[in-house]
Amino acid sequence: MTKAIYPDDKRKLVEDALYHFFPAKDRYPEIIYKAMRHSLFSGGKRFRSVLCLLTGEAFGAEIDEILPTACGLEYIHTYSLIHDDLPAIDNDDLRRGKPTCHVLFGEDIAILAGDALFAEAFYLIASSQTKVEAARILKVIEELAYASGVRGMVSGQVADLQSADKQVKTDILNFIHERKTGELITSAARAGAVIADASDTELEKVTRFAQQLGLAFQITDDILDVVGETDLLGKEVGSDERHNKATFPSLFGLDEAKRKAKEAVDNAINALIDMEVDTSSLVDLAWFVYNREH
Amino acid sequence: MTKAIYPDDKRKLVEDALYHFFPAKDRYPEIIYKAMRHSLFSGGKRFRSVLCLLTGEAFGAEIDEILPTACGLEYIHTYSLIHDDLPAIDNDDLRRGKPTCHVLFGEDIAILAGDALFAEAFYLIASSQTKVEAARILKVIEELAYASGVRGMVSGQVADLQSADKQVKTDILNFIHERKTGELITSAARAGAVIADASDTELEKVTRFAQQLGLAFQITDDILDVVGETDLLGKEVGSDERHNKATFPSLFGLDEAKRKAKEAVDNAINALIDMEVDTSSLVDLAWFVYNREH
Repeated sequence: MTKAIYPDDKRKLVEDALYHFFPAKDRYPEIIYKAMRHSLFSGGKRFRSVLCLLTGEAFGAEIDEILPTACGLEYIHTYSLIHDDLPAIDNDDLRRGKPTCHVLFGEDIAILAGDALFAEAFYLIASSQTKVEAARILKVIEELAYASGVRGMVSGQVADLQSADKQVKTDILNFIHERKTGELITSAARAGAVIADASDTELEKVTRFAQQLGLAFQITDDILDVVGETDLLGKEVGSDERHNKATFPSLFGLDEAKRKAKEAVDNAINALIDMEVDTSSLVDLAWFVYNREH
Repeated sequence: MTKAIYPDDKRKLVEDALYHFFPAKDRYPEIIYKAMRHSLFSGGKRFRSVLCLLTGEAFGAEIDEILPTACGLEYIHTYSLIHDDLPAIDNDDLRRGKPTCHVLFGEDIAILAGDALFAEAFYLIASSQTKVEAARILKVIEELAYASGVRGMVSGQVADLQSADKQVKTDILNFIHERKTGELITSAARAGAVIADASDTELEKVTRFAQQLGLAFQITDDILDVVGETDLLGKEVGSDERHNKATFPSLFGLDEAKRKAKEAVDNAINALIDMEVDTSSLVDLAWFVYNREH
């Protein structure tokens, strides 16, 4: 079984671009910039941005054509984490080994820091893409907004809230994961391909790849919450069980969950067969997801 | 002094378009659609959308080219009201004579209903504008995202929160109003003009008009909170005073506030002088703002 390492060179590119795009100096009122910065720069794999970069590059886009969208994805992901962690929602005090936004800055500022990051995502993508055809950027915005909206991330989060403390069935578990994390991961890969002007057939294959990659990502996330190490994860293991969350291990057991993750990775890699471009970096990313320890 | 009536024909167009664009049938999980619909269809003047329509029409755009953006503006405005009303922020139980979103649906669902409306705004604008050149729609999205973001609406809301229970100076009061309500009103007018492909000179005049109109709108809002009638306003008068909010009447007294509103309306109307297009509907709107009772 292939064990791939994470593309840290791409992560570094994203990290540098985030520092480049995010206002360097706090304006008035400073607290909101501090709160946004705290959550945006608290580490993390930058998985969605890296996936967007790798896909865009595979289809021939220049890195600086993809970076604003990649960073916008990171803004959207960070906003969703800030709001998920709120006392009224998941009530989590710790994220990536650091206090969550509302713990440090208060609930009001945390809500607004999330709101601001969401707005800045669209501002960044719409304003920084002069090299890419406007119609393609518009398509990227449409897809990211859809993935974040009521038929995407929000419906997944609401279904997740409604399922707490209940025994849910497989279809609800799938709904939650597809919407809550799957849609944005799929959009990340599609956005890269759209910026690179990939063909409809290529886009279909990328979509299938990313959907299965997202599924694998979610299953391994659930597994790590059971068997992972707190130090590596930056959050306490067992939090899903304490929150009575529906997960793959709770529904199917650890062994079957691991088998499903492998199946999803295989499906993801198979989706890329017969492509005319070099997709080896995407195959490596799929293997990383399967073998990841954090 | 001219007393203009509100352009209810335009308000009706917006109302119908909102029903057209908003999903007719609740999907799973239904509660989030109900929460969004409750706040989106709770009345209101649709001021930002109507301003966008009137400006777009004045510069020659077709109504159906402007409606998706006009409705997107209403989504953004509604989202900001839902989040402003939250217990962690302004903690308001009543809005337009009806219970606020979190009172009916809980804090978690209200946060997510706001998030969803914000996302759907960008989805609607990006996906429904096939008749308008993509670059112009991209510019509209850039401006609306900026106006809603950390240098716009969010910073105004944060400054407002920080000013509660304090005696603030005029520059802070202006900062709050420009960011919290002014920027989005200005973007609404500019969006209409951008869709209509107005020239840079025309855009400058529209900007000046809308900035002064937004100022007049805010001052009359503050005045109505002191002297208005609860039945007409749909919220209890005196709420600014109870929240210890900085307002124009609290800083300058009622008479001087009224004079400032008149000055802003005059400035707004003067900004439209020497335009080659018919701006009479915008002049009427400015007079409506000055004389409004709700």
